Amino acid sequence: MHDRTKGTARIKPVILCGGTGTRLWPASRAEFPKQFAPLLGRESLYQTTLRRFSGPMFDAPLIVTHEDYRFLATDQAHDIGLADAEIVVEPQARDTAAAVAAAVTLLHARDPETLLLIAPSDHTITDPQAFEDAVASATCAGVDGALVTFGVTPDRAETGYGYLELCDDGPKSGQARRVRAFREKPDAETARIFQHSGQHLWNAGLFLFRARAGMDAFEKHAPDLLAPARDAIHTGANDLGFFRLGAESWDKLRRISFDYAVMEKADTIHAVPLEAGWSDLGAWDAVWLGAPKDADGVSTSGDATAIDCEDSYLRSDVDGIELVGLGLTGIVAVATSDAVLICPKDRAQDVKRAVTELSAAGARQAHEYPRFHRPWGWYERLCLGDRFQVKRIMVKPGGVLSLQSHLHRSEHWVVVQGTAEVTIDDEVKLVSENESVYIPLGTKHRMANHGKVPMYLIEVQTGAYLGEDDIIRHEDVYNRPERV
Amino acid sequence: MHDRTKGTARIKPVILCGGTGTRLWPASRAEFPKQFAPLLGRESLYQTTLRRFSGPMFDAPLIVTHEDYRFLATDQAHDIGLADAEIVVEPQARDTAAAVAAAVTLLHARDPETLLLIAPSDHTITDPQAFEDAVASATCAGVDGALVTFGVTPDRAETGYGYLELCDDGPKSGQARRVRAFREKPDAETARIFQHSGQHLWNAGLFLFRARAGMDAFEKHAPDLLAPARDAIHTGANDLGFFRLGAESWDKLRRISFDYAVMEKADTIHAVPLEAGWSDLGAWDAVWLGAPKDADGVSTSGDATAIDCEDSYLRSDVDGIELVGLGLTGIVAVATSDAVLICPKDRAQDVKRAVTELSAAGARQAHEYPRFHRPWGWYERLCLGDRFQVKRIMVKPGGVLSLQSHLHRSEHWVVVQGTAEVTIDDEVKLVSENESVYIPLGTKHRMANHGKVPMYLIEVQTGAYLGEDDIIRHEDVYNRPERV
Repeated sequence: MHDRTKGTARIKPVILCGGTGTRLWPASRAEFPKQFAPLLGRESLYQTTLRRFSGPMFDAPLIVTHEDYRFLATDQAHDIGLADAEIVVEPQARDTAAAVAAAVTLLHARDPETLLLIAPSDHTITDPQAFEDAVASATCAGVDGALVTFGVTPDRAETGYGYLELCDDGPKSGQARRVRAFREKPDAETARIFQHSGQHLWNAGLFLFRARAGMDAFEKHAPDLLAPARDAIHTGANDLGFFRLGAESWDKLRRISFDYAVMEKADTIHAVPLEAGWSDLGAWDAVWLGAPKDADGVSTSGDATAIDCEDSYLRSDVDGIELVGLGLTGIVAVATSDAVLICPKDRAQDVKRAVTELSAAGARQAHEYPRFHRPWGWYERLCLGDRFQVKRIMVKPGGVLSLQSHLHRSEHWVVVQGTAEVTIDDEVKLVSENESVYIPLGTKHRMANHGKVPMYLIEVQTGAYLGEDDIIRHEDVYNRPERV
Repeated sequence: MHDRTKGTARIKPVILCGGTGTRLWPASRAEFPKQFAPLLGRESLYQTTLRRFSGPMFDAPLIVTHEDYRFLATDQAHDIGLADAEIVVEPQARDTAAAVAAAVTLLHARDPETLLLIAPSDHTITDPQAFEDAVASATCAGVDGALVTFGVTPDRAETGYGYLELCDDGPKSGQARRVRAFREKPDAETARIFQHSGQHLWNAGLFLFRARAGMDAFEKHAPDLLAPARDAIHTGANDLGFFRLGAESWDKLRRISFDYAVMEKADTIHAVPLEAGWSDLGAWDAVWLGAPKDADGVSTSGDATAIDCEDSYLRSDVDGIELVGLGLTGIVAVATSDAVLICPKDRAQDVKRAVTELSAAGARQAHEYPRFHRPWGWYERLCLGDRFQVKRIMVKPGGVLSLQSHLHRSEHWVVVQGTAEVTIDDEVKLVSENESVYIPLGTKHRMANHGKVPMYLIEVQTGAYLGEDDIIRHEDVYNRPERV
């Protein structure tokens, strides 16, 4: 990452990272949402977003995320070498107006002149230079106290986005123009008119303004959001490097988007046109659009093979699962280790309906992701049998599991990479690669990785009940509850 | 199974069980072909075939199978309570004429008057009574020395099968009629004519004749097959309950189907019409046709969910892999733990091309099945990592692995169900549920299950090389080679 001390930090990125997108199921689920998934390339959308804001014109980002994602957000930032992000944790999801209100309040208190750039963490931009140029244009308007939004120049008659309608007057390209109105998602005919009008831009959910201008706009158009946001900050607390907002106050915040609550009501909004290869990757058809394709319009990702296919997207998210499409036209197919989705590309918007149906049917795949992320690392279930279960566990360097015991199961641990420090009742010992240890039912135990490399182990559990809730935490460095 | 001693055994079923169907990939692969897969219902096609020939009119079957499938064939027969089958093992696959020549030669030597019913093991028949009636009709002709074939009355203008063309004379239904000619797969127009002619039947690959008549036909039309078949029997040997044909002689046999080699050349063939819900389940479209469907023509199997789908087949062969089809029309989708196939139903015949391409690309899924069947039981790979591998192993009651050692890996075994007898160098001990044992690199070791229930264990291997060929067999009750 760029060394910020060498540039003149001028803009404070505020990264909104609390979403739980279901339209990209099964790659995105409530427990591992879209922004953390490597949808295009090797890094996640969240990571490429952080990189986008790492240049000399930006200060360290402020990241607003949900309680459940705080360790994912930290780990993925660390993985790309970003160590100076501030992370604000929402106890409950309250949509974007609440998140922006908290960010504006926090930053306004430090310096009302701070320039904020509000950005979602789950979009993609393929031309970073064009993006920086647009940010520079927006800054010119923002320093004068304006509320600035970014509008994407349409390259198709899209009916899935809201539009910004610009005023006739003012400069015609590259710089901020006044917004006459926000237009809801149009019908196909209107979308065709918008595409060629030269006055309509897609609303991309990116905003730039001074903290003072943001505060003024909240006070004028959504004053009811400010008091609970302020209270949540007052009653909030620092916890292991996160700033956790006060849950009781936060719970009172109305669920509404920042667009609806503030931007659409503001008297004067400026928009900067953005031609930087932007996509919100809102559904699988958009991922297909943004992915590299062969001459037949076929995009494959992972162990996927297309034979006689056209205009299709074939994705295997698991090494060792070979996905084969034969004779397909306009089809999306996505395989993970516990779920496969197949649908026509033009039904991609309905994938959220599939998730709703799976959820109603009690299928764990609706929400759970096969890799469970924890503050200390992650685990995957390899096999669930009658009275036994096998997990693969990764403990990151410095990771420490809680000191815990189980009422219903014994565990066998076999270390396959790295070295574990294992505590069993009063005994502490090192267990290294190709060594195993047995944890009898009822004993207090803990594993930790004090080494320099990730530690992998295979855990074989046996017992009559193997649920994740059979755990009593006696001590936990991550302040998690005693019982789950 | 029926107690044969109570009936009068009259017909000797000869079950051909050496095929390696690839058009039903990924459920059928060279290492676990179609006939052993539970394609419809809980039992395999091979098992339902054995049941079809378990009535009082049949003698114990003679099963001709390939070397690689001999334990699968035995185990699946035992699983349905069939203990008196004879199993003849082909050292190499040599198509159906060779298999029939061996069966005819063997059975002719015992009693030339024996009535043989030659049947594939991978077809389905939904009306067993109608089948038995047809067999009774065929028997009337067969006892008189005729070569009798069964012809399925067409219910559609099928272009994928060869046809039997009947003579005008003779009885019109239910009884054997003379065949005028064998017709190759027709074009669509001809197939339409055949469907309604009343003189054309699908060639179903089922034959009935006396051993003497079969021998005469081979001597007349394919005499070159008889000498090597006889030699293979002479040089063959009994081995663990199988009769293994002599490999050197068997290798000399020409690869040709029994139809081409004998039946199509014979002067007089009789055909019995079969209206018994026959299907060869030749490809996924045929499986869809034979499977139960909802009002929209959608068939699901396993953890599969169809939303707004029509005329589609959605199949998940793994508990815990949720396959979701959304808005699909005329699509086949099949998921196993290591491969997923998606294709339009009308491209089902081309699945073998997909297998060829995967094979050329070196994908193990082209041939390997995720559950590896062995004489002692099976294993599945749960996880393959850097320098480690996790397997789930099942050893059936009485199963004994070879006494073996490895040059490159150590193993940790955790028994999760049942009791294992474990040999490590000179030590023999019992390891029961929730106990583990460590097998250091280089030690001679063996596991066995002398209990009454299957034994399951989790094996964690660590080492620099984890290939299946790092094994030295010091002793093996199944007579397998010392090195693989």
